[in-house]
Amino acid sequence: MQLHAMWDDYPALSDDLKEVLQTIEKNIQIRDKHVEKNVKDLIHAGGKLLRPAFALLSAQAGPDFDKDRAVSIAAALEVLHMATLIHDDVVDDSPLRRGIPTIHSKYGRNYAVYTGDYLFCICFKILSAHASSVENIEFNSKNIEKILMGELDQMRTSYKMDVTVREYLTRISGKTAQLFALSCYSGATGSKASRMTVAKCYNIGHYLGMAFQIIDDVLDYTSTDEGLGKPVLNDMKQGIYSLPLIYAMKGHLAEFEPLLSQKLAMSDAASEQVLALISKYNGVEQAFKLANKYTNKALREIKKLPAGSYRDDMYRLTKSILDRDI
Amino acid sequence: MQLHAMWDDYPALSDDLKEVLQTIEKNIQIRDKHVEKNVKDLIHAGGKLLRPAFALLSAQAGPDFDKDRAVSIAAALEVLHMATLIHDDVVDDSPLRRGIPTIHSKYGRNYAVYTGDYLFCICFKILSAHASSVENIEFNSKNIEKILMGELDQMRTSYKMDVTVREYLTRISGKTAQLFALSCYSGATGSKASRMTVAKCYNIGHYLGMAFQIIDDVLDYTSTDEGLGKPVLNDMKQGIYSLPLIYAMKGHLAEFEPLLSQKLAMSDAASEQVLALISKYNGVEQAFKLANKYTNKALREIKKLPAGSYRDDMYRLTKSILDRDI
Repeated sequence: MQLHAMWDDYPALSDDLKEVLQTIEKNIQIRDKHVEKNVKDLIHAGGKLLRPAFALLSAQAGPDFDKDRAVSIAAALEVLHMATLIHDDVVDDSPLRRGIPTIHSKYGRNYAVYTGDYLFCICFKILSAHASSVENIEFNSKNIEKILMGELDQMRTSYKMDVTVREYLTRISGKTAQLFALSCYSGATGSKASRMTVAKCYNIGHYLGMAFQIIDDVLDYTSTDEGLGKPVLNDMKQGIYSLPLIYAMKGHLAEFEPLLSQKLAMSDAASEQVLALISKYNGVEQAFKLANKYTNKALREIKKLPAGSYRDDMYRLTKSILDRDI
Repeated sequence: MQLHAMWDDYPALSDDLKEVLQTIEKNIQIRDKHVEKNVKDLIHAGGKLLRPAFALLSAQAGPDFDKDRAVSIAAALEVLHMATLIHDDVVDDSPLRRGIPTIHSKYGRNYAVYTGDYLFCICFKILSAHASSVENIEFNSKNIEKILMGELDQMRTSYKMDVTVREYLTRISGKTAQLFALSCYSGATGSKASRMTVAKCYNIGHYLGMAFQIIDDVLDYTSTDEGLGKPVLNDMKQGIYSLPLIYAMKGHLAEFEPLLSQKLAMSDAASEQVLALISKYNGVEQAFKLANKYTNKALREIKKLPAGSYRDDMYRLTKSILDRDI
């Protein structure tokens, strides 16, 4: 079982994450062995396992830490994440995920819809194996609602050129931060952390999820596709406008409008003009600044958790994922 | 709140079913009010509410009947049913459901995928509100797995002309009977019925679900579309071969093969030839015979339940839904 190289620096956590993968593997049994293999390939295709990692770390913030329970909770969260990824791929019509063909592109939309549904059930099944966690399940289902609402929000604001920073933050709060918050929360409640500690863990997850998604969105504008040597800007062409663009458009809508209105058919020249405008109006800098604000909030909260080597790991991990300059 | 006219003969049950609808309505809150309205319209568009009805009746087979709990369980099952319907419509690309436009056709595939996911969560949320029912949730999630596996089976056997009666029964067992079995089971366990009674309720649900689906499939070949004056045979054209056809094809595959291989493009003349062949080889009669076998099994099990007016209602209801001749 091969983990992402980033975990080499965290040997204890690394062992626990391997158990998380084993738990997931054990629970996924699909009669159609091709689909089962595809789902299992997805597990091992190098997802970063950030959500289960934060669940495992947060679990150590409580007095009643039980490794098996923490591993189950972490596994349930990763399965939930996979279910939403598979349905996202249906919705976005994506051919690849983590470098392997999506279930949707390989077996058709139908399989992908039902396979995602199946993973939702597996998530609740793994969670409900811990009889003490009914409140947890209720909390989880409410949270999952919010995550799905975030996806629906994203669709509603697509191609909306006057989308505000606030609308963007609401959207990523549901889409990404909620699941990180849920991961930290579930870990902490699972080991009976105090209400104060649980609340801190929830906030840590929320802040780091926000920073994580903003950085991910910035990379869409700055990182270059290996083949093309320039950003692909897929999200932008599909009408999902993220923070660097939103900041740059503020007060300069007239300059962007003729370019963005080309939508999916946007020419290479127009793409480059958009990038030039974002650079001119410091969209990326402003976005990074906000991401750093969230990162610092997360780091400050982590420092307030009960002391322990888990806390040092959490601090180091958060810093290594999020603390970057342009 | 308007129920299907069939419930006029069951005044007590009818009141409980209205509460089920209210519980569902209360729990569904979608930020996008158009989608919310569409989901609520679906609730009120005259679904027969058979699954919650059997859950409510089975709940009265136990010593610890609590109306609120029974109503919640029944509501969760109907929401689960709705979630699978919405995803089925995505998969089948259906324009209408219960006479109203599907979410899929009105708002797009994306909304339909996420709305179905949302309803899955609502199902678990409603269930988890009853703290005593963790085992119940675990059982439910395992059952839902089986239901989804039934859908995947259906896809795998599509256009398979040598599909056996056994394969057909496995398919409908997952697709339909499982949810009826789960409804009866959940109702009975919710009110602490004995293991024997719970097992009987599970069987009742299974048998009546099997009979229900066979009859539904027979009607596909015998009932006439209002506009066309003849059966539409949509399932058949989409490669979903059900019992009357499977019986008729047995030993006569060569006669069906050139007709069925036209698939979606099947001509009206070919459709009529298929119907004539099914009639020639008594496909409908044989299917009805098997449905009646299941109905009688269900009725026999019902008679063995603890006595009570609920049992009389269950018997009468089962007979009125299922006990029919050609």
